[in-house]
This record gives sequence, structure tokens and C-alpha cells, in this order.
Amino acid sequence: MMRIGLLGGGVIGGGWAARFLLNGHDVDLFDPDPDAPRKLERVLENARRAYGRLTLAPLPAEGELRFATTVEEAVTAADFVQESAPERIELKRKLLGAASAAARPDVVIASSTSGLRPTELQTGMTRPEHLTVGHPFNPVYLLPLVELCAGERTARATIERAAEVYRSVGMQPLHVRTEIDGFIADRLLEALWREALWLVHDGVATVEEVDDAIRYGPGLRWSIMGTFLTYRIAGGEDGVRHFMAQFGPALQWPWTKLTDVPELTNELLDRLESESDEQARGLSIAELERLRDDCLVGVLQALRGQGVGAGETLRRYETELIGAASVAGSDGAPLRLHRATVGPDWVDYNGHASESTYLRVAGQATDLLLGLVGIDDGYLRDGGSYYTVETHLRHLGQAVEGDLLEVATQVLGADEKRLHVYHRVLRGDDVLATAEQMLLHVDARTGRSGPAAAEVLAAVRRIADAHAVLPPPDDVGRRIEMPAPVA
Amino acid sequence: MMRIGLLGGGVIGGGWAARFLLNGHDVDLFDPDPDAPRKLERVLENARRAYGRLTLAPLPAEGELRFATTVEEAVTAADFVQESAPERIELKRKLLGAASAAARPDVVIASSTSGLRPTELQTGMTRPEHLTVGHPFNPVYLLPLVELCAGERTARATIERAAEVYRSVGMQPLHVRTEIDGFIADRLLEALWREALWLVHDGVATVEEVDDAIRYGPGLRWSIMGTFLTYRIAGGEDGVRHFMAQFGPALQWPWTKLTDVPELTNELLDRLESESDEQARGLSIAELERLRDDCLVGVLQALRGQGVGAGETLRRYETELIGAASVAGSDGAPLRLHRATVGPDWVDYNGHASESTYLRVAGQATDLLLGLVGIDDGYLRDGGSYYTVETHLRHLGQAVEGDLLEVATQVLGADEKRLHVYHRVLRGDDVLATAEQMLLHVDARTGRSGPAAAEVLAAVRRIADAHAVLPPPDDVGRRIEMPAPVA
Repeated sequence: MMRIGLLGGGVIGGGWAARFLLNGHDVDLFDPDPDAPRKLERVLENARRAYGRLTLAPLPAEGELRFATTVEEAVTAADFVQESAPERIELKRKLLGAASAAARPDVVIASSTSGLRPTELQTGMTRPEHLTVGHPFNPVYLLPLVELCAGERTARATIERAAEVYRSVGMQPLHVRTEIDGFIADRLLEALWREALWLVHDGVATVEEVDDAIRYGPGLRWSIMGTFLTYRIAGGEDGVRHFMAQFGPALQWPWTKLTDVPELTNELLDRLESESDEQARGLSIAELERLRDDCLVGVLQALRGQGVGAGETLRRYETELIGAASVAGSDGAPLRLHRATVGPDWVDYNGHASESTYLRVAGQATDLLLGLVGIDDGYLRDGGSYYTVETHLRHLGQAVEGDLLEVATQVLGADEKRLHVYHRVLRGDDVLATAEQMLLHVDARTGRSGPAAAEVLAAVRRIADAHAVLPPPDDVGRRIEMPAPVA
Repeated sequence: MMRIGLLGGGVIGGGWAARFLLNGHDVDLFDPDPDAPRKLERVLENARRAYGRLTLAPLPAEGELRFATTVEEAVTAADFVQESAPERIELKRKLLGAASAAARPDVVIASSTSGLRPTELQTGMTRPEHLTVGHPFNPVYLLPLVELCAGERTARATIERAAEVYRSVGMQPLHVRTEIDGFIADRLLEALWREALWLVHDGVATVEEVDDAIRYGPGLRWSIMGTFLTYRIAGGEDGVRHFMAQFGPALQWPWTKLTDVPELTNELLDRLESESDEQARGLSIAELERLRDDCLVGVLQALRGQGVGAGETLRRYETELIGAASVAGSDGAPLRLHRATVGPDWVDYNGHASESTYLRVAGQATDLLLGLVGIDDGYLRDGGSYYTVETHLRHLGQAVEGDLLEVATQVLGADEKRLHVYHRVLRGDDVLATAEQMLLHVDARTGRSGPAAAEVLAAVRRIADAHAVLPPPDDVGRRIEMPAPVA
């Protein structure tokens, strides 16, 4: 675990704090705003909520957040420093200069600036070679992109170290190889936003109509592929050159007014404000944030299913989390291998978690149990695995969205081929469902059952022996039947 | 069902054909390209694949596709005409003029043009009042956005009729109230693309780096919210004006080179081509299309879970599909209420459908059975419902991604409160899983069991009586147990 020094705790700095804390790192944060702790707690609440839905992988215990009263206090013991102050170059130079003088000599200092050149920021630093831009995107705890950009005096190792730190907390570093104002993403964002402001300024569209033109159409593609790959596909079999010949000339058409920027008059600001209010439909910023986060979690999970873009980043991150977590053994109590929060997409038309939710979390506990007894990638590649042949599920209570479910798993019995398990799906102490399962060890290549490998059997038997002291659940071996009709 | 006249069967026209056909409408398509039928079949294949994953709602039987040899043949009997020819104004005028003369006098004619003004297109039409722009986005069968724009002579009713047609096939019409070149979305798209081309032209970034700057960061947000709502949130509690004061000035910074368009020299085209090839990692256009569609389906489903943007459009569309489908009654055979294709996100680490898949589709069949016996929104609002109290699931085979599963549902018994059902999850004739379930009728307000309403009981008993002739499955009432150890 690292100790992270953060300078600035606003929307971006708070997002960094959340990402580092939820990844188990301690954070020392300096922000002169007396309201910073309250604002930070709100970001943290959002981030905890989002992570609870984002991944089943075992996150480390949350790090400790300490508020520092000076720059020096925040960075002296830090392994990595991230500055997220307002976009005023003199302020940033002052903070980075102080941090550079106080930090350990080997520590990398990253600036969240969205547009200032790192060479400009290096002025006045004790160790300018350790500065890099590390430009993230809001919400920092969910969006993987972080742009790295070196200044003239930045050492190559600084970029590499920053990329390593960011990757370890689930991010996707993009090395901007040429030092330019605005880097890559913000140039694209600003180009689009400038055009959007003109459309509103000229009364062509409201802010909601502009937003709808994005989110119902091209915006859906942009979560998956960028503009070039999208157009490669649109060009079809005829190729990129054909596409450029067909659509390149349109770039010359007088479609846009990009030479100027609309003046931000009071009238325009009034309009932006009132149209934005209308578009928000009375939802508070906090409500909009949660809605955005829930959607982002859903989109990230959808992309993870395809291993594409940000979904691939998430998948890689989870693989590392699972690898890092050493699942504890058994002590004669049911195993507590799995926890999950009921997501909004698990809820049925009654507003309750759908019935398959309980089997889903029980099945995930079974998967984790199999991991515990040594069914790993290598074992699967060799063709051995356990398959569930039968499940008896009882529904005893109902979970709703946001409930934290925990699964307690008891091994009822085992022989060379079979594994008989019993899961209780719990919300606190309430048993919401039970799932009794029989698993059979098979050779996946032949599809026929056969004994598990000796070391797997040994692990299974260790748990089964430890669980032999537990009373058998009273509904084991239960069958479904209609009561006899009353005569 | 409608009869749709289509002019042009390229990437966009083919996408329209697919959307209309899969929504049960017959399509008459005119395209002089002799290769049109082959290209169209490929789009249709993609669209069928995507729809199979997109929704569980019952789609109507696919419409009939006929190739017309003239414009007149394509439009004479049409209820709606959509033109999707290349962006050459003289060509479009010729086609629209011919269509206007040949179509029924009440028929609306929409042009897919991405930038030409409708007033320009109305020149030479017999009934210009029936022309509107209906500008869709690729892939047309998945993306809901369609921009409507009236020309000077367009009737109000034309816009309304087109919006109605588009909504009925699951789209989200956006009325562009001011007639401008490029409408709204393409102005935004072009602004971003122009900036992207400059970044590549100047050697700042490769096409892949530009795309990564979008899809790992801001692109994820754009699938959910547009640029204005995103910035409203980023501004936090301090409001839109504060955000504009903080970031508005940056628009004036010399970040972009938007006054010009990079010249499409051979050198630049070579670079775009080779960098695009590299980015595609050897995937063909067909493979990229499927990957894009699978991701879009996942993103749309994630947004449906939240009821946001394109997800809300999908939800509304499905509600209408379900309302439109009249579920057939029972004839003494198990009910076949539900079919589903195994999606890529249902697959576990073994490459097989995860165990909860079978309960998921069985549970969906139960939901449809409940709909069939009259448990509708009104009944639920009055507080009555059936809940599953117990499930016995047997796993007898394994499904893999892409398998079409069908559920055969047998009612084993029923009394005033209980409903005892048995599902077979089938792939063709193979039984992959069985699910025996006991449901209990409850008053959701008290949480206690109680008899179902008389009309529900009558419907349940009709099915139970019809199913009484069926042999009971031999594993009914089965319990899970370890075999006795061999002595």
C-alpha cells in the first residue's frame, strides 16, 4: 500500500482521494477550503456506492484519509503526489514548488491540469524531472483515462512510474507524446463544446436538444470506439480512403462557426442556466451524480463483457485484485467468501431482486470456493473442473436495490467426485435464500465425471472436515410438494 | 404492418431495411448497385444477431424484402418512403422528384441526408409538403437517434407522421427546429473530427491515440449524458454560471486550429490508412461490426436498467412490443412462452452459460406465465402477486454463447394460493436444465399469503386442467442427497 499526498480536494482532487482510498492507499490531503472535508465525504460516499456495484473482485480495506494543514505535511511522507488545484498557473507553480522541496527526492509529482503545459509548471521546482501531467476525467474514481504529458525537463522514468501507479488503481494511462496545450482529449472536448455553445447562442437548439443529439446517437458509439474506428466501419468494405473521399469534402462546407467563440454575455449565460435547470428535471447535483455513476457502472460492465476499451481495463484490474487477495481458510464456521450489492438491473417488476439474483450470488460463492480449493486457470486448462448438477433454492425473504448481500457457505459433504454445498444468502442476520448444490467433478475434454486431483481433494476434505462440526441445515434434502388437499 | 419504400441500400439504406424488416414491415428497395442484395444480406445478418440479444420482448415475424428495379416500383404501394442515396444534391433531387410523383398522395417521404437542407431537396417534388429530413446514425438498426428537419414547404403533419413511424420502430426522433446545414449532431461530430484530423496531421497523436482519448474517458459519459449535463455535474453545487466562469475562458485559449481544415494530401491519407489498419488489429470490417454491435447492445441494456437516454427509448419500445403481442393460450401441451439467446455476458469462466442463466430464463417464463393468467400492472398496483418460494433446479446440459434457448412450461398443480410449475430449458430437443418451482400468492402490502383474485384463479385452473393430461416429469419432488458410500 502507498501513501499518497494530494494537493486540492475539489471535484477532481476528491475523486483522486476516493480512487486511492478505495484501492487501500492512505491519503494525506491539503486543501485550504474549510468545507473540504464535507465535500470530500460526499465524493467518497458516491465512490463507495459505485465500487460496490462495479466489481465483485475483493478490494483491499479502505485506506486512511488525513487532512493536512500545509503542503509540506501532505507530501513529506508521500510515495506519490497528485496536485489538483484550480487552473491558475501561479497557484499551481507555488504548490508544485513547495511540494518538490518537501517531498522525498525520488517521489513523482503529477499535476491534474487539463490544459497547462508541464514545462510551464516546472518553473521553480526543486526536482522538475519528477513532474508529469496526469490529467484525469470526472468522475475520477470511475473513468479510467488519465493523460500523461512530459515537460522539457521531465525524466522518462517519471512517466513510467506515474503510469505504473495509475494502472495499479485501475486506470488507463495515455501518453501524450507531444507537449501541447489542452493535450488530446480536452482539445476534442472543447471543439465539440464550442460548436455546442454556438448552436445554443444562435437559438438553433436548447442545451437539452444538443445533449440528446449526442446521447441517443454518436455518444453511444463513443463509449466503445473513437471517431476514427467508427468511421472505418462506416466506410465499409471500401476502406478509409473511400470514406475520406466521400465525407472529407464535407469538412470544407460552411457548417460550423469555429473561427470564433461566442461571447459569454449575460443573456447567453442566463439562457444556459435556465435551460440547464429545465434539463435537470429537478434532480439535485447529488442525484445526477448517482444516476451518472450507476449508468457508468452499467456501461463499464457491458464493455467488460466484450473486453473492449474501458471494459478491458476493468477486467485487467479485477484480475489483479483477485490475484492479490489471499482468500482465508476455514475455521469450523461457514465460509464467508462473497459479498455483493443488489444492483439496479437485478430488480424485477415488483421492485425486488429477481429470483435468479440469489442463485447468482450463491453461484459466485461456489466459484470462489472452487478457487479456494485450487481450481485455477491452470487446472481448468488441464481440463478438470466441477460442474453444478443440481440446485435446490429456497426463497425466504426479499432483497431490494442497494441491499448488501453476503453468502455463508457450508460444505455438507464430499467424496472423490462430488461436492455437496449449502449457501445461505444473508442480509445482515436475515437469511433471504438458501441454495443447496451438488457439484460433480468432470474432465471437460470428455465431459465425463472423474475424481478430482489429489491436492484439490485434500483441500476439499480439509474444509469438509472443519465443517463436520456444524449442524446440518434443517432443509437439506428437502423436496418440493403440494400440501395434501384439505378434505 | 406497413409497406416501406426504400431508395438506396448502402450502409444507411441497408440499416433502414433491417430496422423496418425486423419490426415486421415489408420493404421494397431500389438500388441500382448489382451488389446490393449481397451487401444487404450482410447488414440483415448483423441486425438479426443484434436484435436476438437486445430484447426479450416478442418481435413480430420478419417482414418481406423485395428488390425493385425502378424508383416507381419501390414507392407506388408504400406507406412511407425513406431515401438514402449518396450525398449528391442532383441525385437526391432526381430520386425524390420521381418518388413524389409516383407515391400515394398522402405518403411522407424522408431523406437520410446528413447535411443537405430540406428546402434545397424540395425543388422539383410534386408534393414538397410531404418531405422531411430523417437523418439516422450508423448502425441504423441499433442507434435510436433520428434528426427530423423541415424545409420551407414542409407541412407540420409531415414531421408528426415521420416521428410516429420512427417511434414505432424503436427510435428517438429529435426535431431540429431551425433549418441549418449539418443539423445538430453532425455539426458536433464534424467539430470533433476536424480537431482529430489536425492532431493526426500535426503528428501529435495517432488515430488510435485520438480514439483512446475518447473511449476511455469522455466517450463513456457521452453515452449517458451530453456535454451540457455532464458539465452541470462537473460544476458541482456552485452551478452553471460558476462552471462557465471557471472554464469558459479556456475556450479562448489557442488550443485548437479550427479556423482551417487540414488539406487531405496523399501523405495524410496514407497515414490515416496505415494507422487505421494498425488500429484494427487485423479484424475485418464484418468482425468490427459485430464487436461494435455487441458492445452497443450491452450499453443499451445497461442504460435500460437505469431508464436513461437510449435505455429509456428501448424500455418504451419493449413495453409496446409486449403489449402488442397477444400471448396464445394452452392446448394441453406445455406452454412455449419464452425464447432467449445466450448473450456473451451470460458466459462463465469455463465458456459455458453460467448456472444462473437457466434460472433466469425459467424465471422469465414464469413472469410471462403470470402475465398470461392476468397478473398485469393493474393487478400489481392493487397489491396482489405471486412470489417464488422454492426452486429445484437440475443442470443436465450446457449452453454456450449464441445458443437459442426455449422454455417449455408445465403447470403441475394449483390451489387458491399455490402454483406449482415445471420448466424445461431446451436447446432444440435437448433438455439443458429443469426448474421446478412453487409460487405463493401474496398481498404485497401485508407480505402475507392469500388467495388470488377469482379471474386469475380461473385462468390458472384452465391451464392446470389442460396440463393434467401430461405425464408428471419423473424428477418432480426430487431431493438432493449424497449416495451412500460404497462399503
